[in-house]
Amino acid sequence: MLTPPSLTTQRTWEIYPRPIQDDIAKLTQAGCDVLFNPDVTEMYADNEKWHLAIGELEGLLEGEFRPGHYRGVTQVVFKLFDIVKPHPAFFGQKDYQQVLVITQMVKLLNMPVKLVMCPIEREADGPAMSSRNIHLTADDRQHALILSKTLNNVKVNFDSNHIEQLIQDAQAAINNEPGVKLGYFEIVDGDTLHPANKNTKNVVALVAATVGKTRLIDNVIIR
Amino acid sequence: MLTPPSLTTQRTWEIYPRPIQDDIAKLTQAGCDVLFNPDVTEMYADNEKWHLAIGELEGLLEGEFRPGHYRGVTQVVFKLFDIVKPHPAFFGQKDYQQVLVITQMVKLLNMPVKLVMCPIEREADGPAMSSRNIHLTADDRQHALILSKTLNNVKVNFDSNHIEQLIQDAQAAINNEPGVKLGYFEIVDGDTLHPANKNTKNVVALVAATVGKTRLIDNVIIR
Repeated sequence: MLTPPSLTTQRTWEIYPRPIQDDIAKLTQAGCDVLFNPDVTEMYADNEKWHLAIGELEGLLEGEFRPGHYRGVTQVVFKLFDIVKPHPAFFGQKDYQQVLVITQMVKLLNMPVKLVMCPIEREADGPAMSSRNIHLTADDRQHALILSKTLNNVKVNFDSNHIEQLIQDAQAAINNEPGVKLGYFEIVDGDTLHPANKNTKNVVALVAATVGKTRLIDNVIIR
Repeated sequence: MLTPPSLTTQRTWEIYPRPIQDDIAKLTQAGCDVLFNPDVTEMYADNEKWHLAIGELEGLLEGEFRPGHYRGVTQVVFKLFDIVKPHPAFFGQKDYQQVLVITQMVKLLNMPVKLVMCPIEREADGPAMSSRNIHLTADDRQHALILSKTLNNVKVNFDSNHIEQLIQDAQAAINNEPGVKLGYFEIVDGDTLHPANKNTKNVVALVAATVGKTRLIDNVIIR
């Protein structure tokens, strides 16, 4: 998902890695028939100042670190759905919160689209695949392994009676890794993003950290 | 338009005059085939906290006096259009700003509906017809005449070189009327609600005032 140029994310749009020729080659190879690839001026009128506020979900976790980000996402995804009118639409689990936010938008606005969450694709040694990974130096790449490793540890050792301890240990492990600055590591209710407790049905662990100069996110569905 | 029970307008919903049997009789007489008359629980989920922010228009004039009001309006009109799927939809000019706000929503969200603004219906001596008029005492009713009278004066004597003076005189006339507390009297661009100047193409004068205990709005399209 390209980040749209809302007031708060204009800069992100411009520095986002956009190897569109590579994407087109991959899409062609995968048998894609049609690509919708508008430029900014096709999607946005000048000085377009509106947003949909979908409620609490947009302000938690990533929303705290990137205020307004998910309002840019819902705005551009609303436009995308309105233009393309997809029956199903596929979003990656890697931005788990984005999936929740778009799900909430679709529900609130009663949009005629079925959302499908696609599992995270990982490198052989663990890290979630991401267009941002090209920004990582070889050293960054090594340090970044702590994120997927810690998520996996939490999943394997999950014990709903000791969630706080699991979180603290995970945060400590990441903080101890050189070159890694932890944003958050949380174990939450997978529907509300509120802290999980022993009665929580759907549990997800989410992490955000800056490795070198690159901010990465990852998550794992625990149950 | 019934005011929806958003967080900021719950009270308004409850005290709104709702002579629904009278309305039904009038609709029947007018040849209405179908009435959509849901109750609150049909229109709103519990604890429904979202809104569409359509930009500057919602915060001016009425928006300053009733923060959040037009977010409640766009929310419920969005739902109405989504449920009813009208081809045309009719809104009264008396809440001129409401027409602009809904027009902006329809444009931004590319909704398949044609909006029609219906002229203000007036009593023989001037006042705009309003469900709120039943709250006026006989004295209030007399004092309220100043609103339509002043609007009419501004229209008849409009001179685009002396807009400031016209506004000041109108405000003074209303302030001098016993029992009337002026909210605002403005002469604005009918598309943006920004102050009109001599080059403004569409000019509208808008007034809000509390007469006795009842807040009234009225307006006139000048050109």
